[in-house]
Amino acid sequence: MFGVKTLRAVRICRASVLWRPSQTVTRTQSVAAGPRVDIGGIYPPIATPFTQNEDVDYQKLDENLRKYAKIPFRGLVVQGSNGEYPYLTDDERVEVVRRVRLALPTCQLVLAGSGCESTRATVVMTERMARAGADMVLVVTPCFYKGKMDSRALVHHFTQVADSSPVPVVLYSVPANTGLDLPVDAVLRLAQHPNILGLKDSGGDITRIGLIVHKTKAQDFQVLAGSAGFLMAAYSVGCVGGVCALANVLGNELCDLERLCVSGRWDDARALQQRLIEPNAAVTRKFGVPALKQAMEWFGYHGGACRSPLQPLSDVESQQLRLDFSTNGWI
Amino acid sequence: MFGVKTLRAVRICRASVLWRPSQTVTRTQSVAAGPRVDIGGIYPPIATPFTQNEDVDYQKLDENLRKYAKIPFRGLVVQGSNGEYPYLTDDERVEVVRRVRLALPTCQLVLAGSGCESTRATVVMTERMARAGADMVLVVTPCFYKGKMDSRALVHHFTQVADSSPVPVVLYSVPANTGLDLPVDAVLRLAQHPNILGLKDSGGDITRIGLIVHKTKAQDFQVLAGSAGFLMAAYSVGCVGGVCALANVLGNELCDLERLCVSGRWDDARALQQRLIEPNAAVTRKFGVPALKQAMEWFGYHGGACRSPLQPLSDVESQQLRLDFSTNGWI
Amino acid sequence: MFGVKTLRAVRICRASVLWRPSQTVTRTQSVAAGPRVDIGGIYPPIATPFTQNEDVDYQKLDENLRKYAKIPFRGLVVQGSNGEYPYLTDDERVEVVRRVRLALPTCQLVLAGSGCESTRATVVMTERMARAGADMVLVVTPCFYKGKMDSRALVHHFTQVADSSPVPVVLYSVPANTGLDLPVDAVLRLAQHPNILGLKDSGGDITRIGLIVHKTKAQDFQVLAGSAGFLMAAYSVGCVGGVCALANVLGNELCDLERLCVSGRWDDARALQQRLIEPNAAVTRKFGVPALKQAMEWFGYHGGACRSPLQPLSDVESQQLRLDFSTNGWI
Amino acid sequence: MFGVKTLRAVRICRASVLWRPSQTVTRTQSVAAGPRVDIGGIYPPIATPFTQNEDVDYQKLDENLRKYAKIPFRGLVVQGSNGEYPYLTDDERVEVVRRVRLALPTCQLVLAGSGCESTRATVVMTERMARAGADMVLVVTPCFYKGKMDSRALVHHFTQVADSSPVPVVLYSVPANTGLDLPVDAVLRLAQHPNILGLKDSGGDITRIGLIVHKTKAQDFQVLAGSAGFLMAAYSVGCVGGVCALANVLGNELCDLERLCVSGRWDDARALQQRLIEPNAAVTRKFGVPALKQAMEWFGYHGGACRSPLQPLSDVESQQLRLDFSTNGWI
Repeated sequence: MFGVKTLRAVRICRASVLWRPSQTVTRTQSVAAGPRVDIGGIYPPIATPFTQNEDVDYQKLDENLRKYAKIPFRGLVVQGSNGEYPYLTDDERVEVVRRVRLALPTCQLVLAGSGCESTRATVVMTERMARAGADMVLVVTPCFYKGKMDSRALVHHFTQVADSSPVPVVLYSVPANTGLDLPVDAVLRLAQHPNILGLKDSGGDITRIGLIVHKTKAQDFQVLAGSAGFLMAAYSVGCVGGVCALANVLGNELCDLERLCVSGRWDDARALQQRLIEPNAAVTRKFGVPALKQAMEWFGYHGGACRSPLQPLSDVESQQLRLDFSTNGWI
Repeated sequence: MFGVKTLRAVRICRASVLWRPSQTVTRTQSVAAGPRVDIGGIYPPIATPFTQNEDVDYQKLDENLRKYAKIPFRGLVVQGSNGEYPYLTDDERVEVVRRVRLALPTCQLVLAGSGCESTRATVVMTERMARAGADMVLVVTPCFYKGKMDSRALVHHFTQVADSSPVPVVLYSVPANTGLDLPVDAVLRLAQHPNILGLKDSGGDITRIGLIVHKTKAQDFQVLAGSAGFLMAAYSVGCVGGVCALANVLGNELCDLERLCVSGRWDDARALQQRLIEPNAAVTRKFGVPALKQAMEWFGYHGGACRSPLQPLSDVESQQLRLDFSTNGWI
Repeated sequence: MFGVKTLRAVRICRASVLWRPSQTVTRTQSVAAGPRVDIGGIYPPIATPFTQNEDVDYQKLDENLRKYAKIPFRGLVVQGSNGEYPYLTDDERVEVVRRVRLALPTCQLVLAGSGCESTRATVVMTERMARAGADMVLVVTPCFYKGKMDSRALVHHFTQVADSSPVPVVLYSVPANTGLDLPVDAVLRLAQHPNILGLKDSGGDITRIGLIVHKTKAQDFQVLAGSAGFLMAAYSVGCVGGVCALANVLGNELCDLERLCVSGRWDDARALQQRLIEPNAAVTRKFGVPALKQAMEWFGYHGGACRSPLQPLSDVESQQLRLDFSTNGWI
Repeated sequence: MFGVKTLRAVRICRASVLWRPSQTVTRTQSVAAGPRVDIGGIYPPIATPFTQNEDVDYQKLDENLRKYAKIPFRGLVVQGSNGEYPYLTDDERVEVVRRVRLALPTCQLVLAGSGCESTRATVVMTERMARAGADMVLVVTPCFYKGKMDSRALVHHFTQVADSSPVPVVLYSVPANTGLDLPVDAVLRLAQHPNILGLKDSGGDITRIGLIVHKTKAQDFQVLAGSAGFLMAAYSVGCVGGVCALANVLGNELCDLERLCVSGRWDDARALQQRLIEPNAAVTRKFGVPALKQAMEWFGYHGGACRSPLQPLSDVESQQLRLDFSTNGWI
């Protein structure tokens, strides 16, 4: 329908070479000893399938991973918000990362969510995930004491973590879950840290995102959109990729959108982007993780159950979810 | 510096013919007797200069208008939020519109803010502004009883106004001032009204804007970005123009940005867009109308005083404002 | 059932002498030439009945007033939020105040809402309402430019109004409508003005209210609760009365509650207070002015229509409203 | 100064017999086999002292507990928000509870915060804390997926926990930290569970609290105010006690306030309450846990360090904190 399918070549394992946006090519790699990893591209923040007893279903996870390995993703985010990581034990968190690393080709990055509320726990978890094979860690803003999580506290937190981390760090701001936006001035400070590579911004404030790209140009700082809903707009203002819940379901299509944006085919990109907004909203802010898992089942993946207190969709919600895919031509 | 100045031809009065985005060309004009007015382009929401006694300074207004007439704006918004319209009497509101219409070439549209809290007052004000020469009216969401301003109430309000208005209506959603976002489902309903042309969306939620563009394709509905901060992103998702406070100060530059977006020169557009974010934030959400008026003075326009309770900037604020322009190379 | 009905003597026109809370008796009247008016007691913020054509129905207003004159209210608030004042023309606003003053016994205070967005309009409206017979004016926080309505701007606004007002001023903070809480430090500054008598606080933050009472003890500053939902708690922390939408419907009952609080009969007060919370919520934040007007019809008053864009209740809402009264034994 | 000190008898270990509000005496104990525990009274939500290395300082904790044991508290809350529980490991959480139980007289209740994000983790932690000696558990609303934490999910969560808990459960709603208010309808459903004793409500919406007391009268459901700022108002509407951060510092004074409220000495209560609002705000929403710990040092307790990312107060903040105590006569 969009004529983009033919563009999708066998990209796996050549991603970082072939399809980078032009602006990243000329970056000066000044901050660290060697060049920074190019993290540009699409990442599904993978769901964690559970059995009916709410145990982690590692077998179903493996089956999902085998499928994801064939999609030209830049990598996978393990234990972003959609991974129900706050519902996993520490050991489960590490084990899931280990499994993912084993299942993926080495050219696909494993970006592991190692954030905890305390700095010391985050340092420990970061170290464990690096040992389990994470290529990078994604560190969410601590948020319980949100009234005290000002720039001073957050800069201190992320600096401590980055100082001790064996692998590069990506900052993670997700106000819908945390009630807290990582302040721009804190981002600008942290962008200067040699072990902090970039930011995943799930807030969707495109003005803010554009400003961050602008003010961090000298630091080789890479910004990823945190949702498929504003992926094209994010590319337009200088983001290098996206971590998109919807990529668990429509992974190839999001990689198509990436390529259209990167290659400057904006009219085609717009047409594709627009068809993705409603399905994306449905599996994120409208119905959440239970909807993402339900949609995964429809599209040939294993969603499985959620852990309580997350509840399965009601029948009405499920019908509405289906409608959000079907009216946009995906089912 | 950006090589775009040479693009800026004598566009005045040919705007609607020459530089429309391609997607508007093929629109079917099905909803009304004749083709709809193409409202694509840049609009400054003009400030209302006051004397030190807080009277409207019509002379200084006229001098500003003479300058704006030479910039390739698609038109002017009179009595958007930056016009301090809630501080004007009804007669002042109409008189300002009359003056603007007289001062502009006919090819520049006058988009007059006629919104009031009650439907009946809005109907009356709309009629008066049309008689005073407004080409279109911009109708803000009523907001005092925000808990009751659901889709039902808002659809009723805008429908009543559009039914009786002698000129086309543009919807106006500005949550930073009203505490209320015009719901998407209300927009979709209202887009079907033959006398409702489009929407000015100042909320900046680019996902929402993209969705509205997508879902109103069949209705020849035109969406304008309500701020310079996300203008380029708005073009990328299908907006046809922008109403930008910053255009009171950097009008030609915003018209440059328009042209870069419309002609698909996204890399140049991005570079220009990024330099506009901080100055725009400074004259809008950071320091507000007093900052806009201060900056106008710096750039050769008359800002004049604000009406109370708006207060002039403090010295510290003024210095910060200047910095937001100078660090981006505008002063 | 509560044994309080027998307490309700013929209080009209002796209110200010008989039933004041003990703490007001010993106040020093230091700020102005004479003693300040004691504003303690209950006020209905009266609704404005409209005809089916949405004209002000002065006859029905008069009939309501005749009934209110027999209830031991301390006075009436005219053009608080429940009076749909943002939907009235300036002339209508003044005329309604004039009618109310004519219809009430002189011992009942007329507290007229004269707030407008601009300071100059508020000054003019205040003057007009004083001439029309208002005993005091109630001045709401301007709110359209909420980002700029800091303490500096608000102190300036209220000071200008109070300086020029022929009658005493009561501050009015109603964040549910304005999106703005008058800051505590601004209240403390303004409490020192000799022509500012007190504050109507509709936010319901009882900690804040207690703090304001505490910090203004030296200024003979009187705080009124802005809702029946927290009236008893407000008395407990030192408020002297309440402006309660529900008093349009259950006026005698709220005067009963006042007396129980003032006389220290807290157990009886609690039992009565609790039965008022749900009906009060129903006619305020849950269903708003249309519900208040519907309930007025049930209780023998004229509610009449609302002006658009306010819509009448749906059948389902109306049933729910009825339930909120009946489950608490009021219907 | 207030004449209340003489009221403070040796209450320890007779609390539940002597000073209960009258309305609790006549409650029918219908829901469970035996009578429910009367939880009325004051609880400090104790801070967790850390060493400079951010290890739990059990010795200093013990010294604090020895002092708290001499104050007529109804009990201690261990691992409420002020205990930095999100920064503790699971083992630390249990160990702290064990220490507290050992250090207190048996008449003082240990109310242990056992809430985790997932239902299964909360069930396990509840069981562990009960074995460690907790008399009751305090279970906070899970909040990470706030968009999905509707009444259905929360009722399911708390029911699962209460069904399996060896000790009674108290619900805990603290929107300032969680961004989530436990909905009233969920509270009313859960109040019917035989193993759910009550609610700690830290939101401070006194109307809501009054409504909950009103609608749960038949269930012997006990509501505790979650802050000293609205303690008196909470008593006035029917709460039976309070969990107050400030009680870590001014424990006897809060027990005084309790007694004044319970014995109906409202004028004295008001005078004392008002002096507590600013110090309480200072150690909670204004400056948070670091301020609480600083103030504890001033008043003879061990606050110790916070765990990162919480930062110590700046000098300016520390001076302001001191002022909030001194201007109210506490230092």
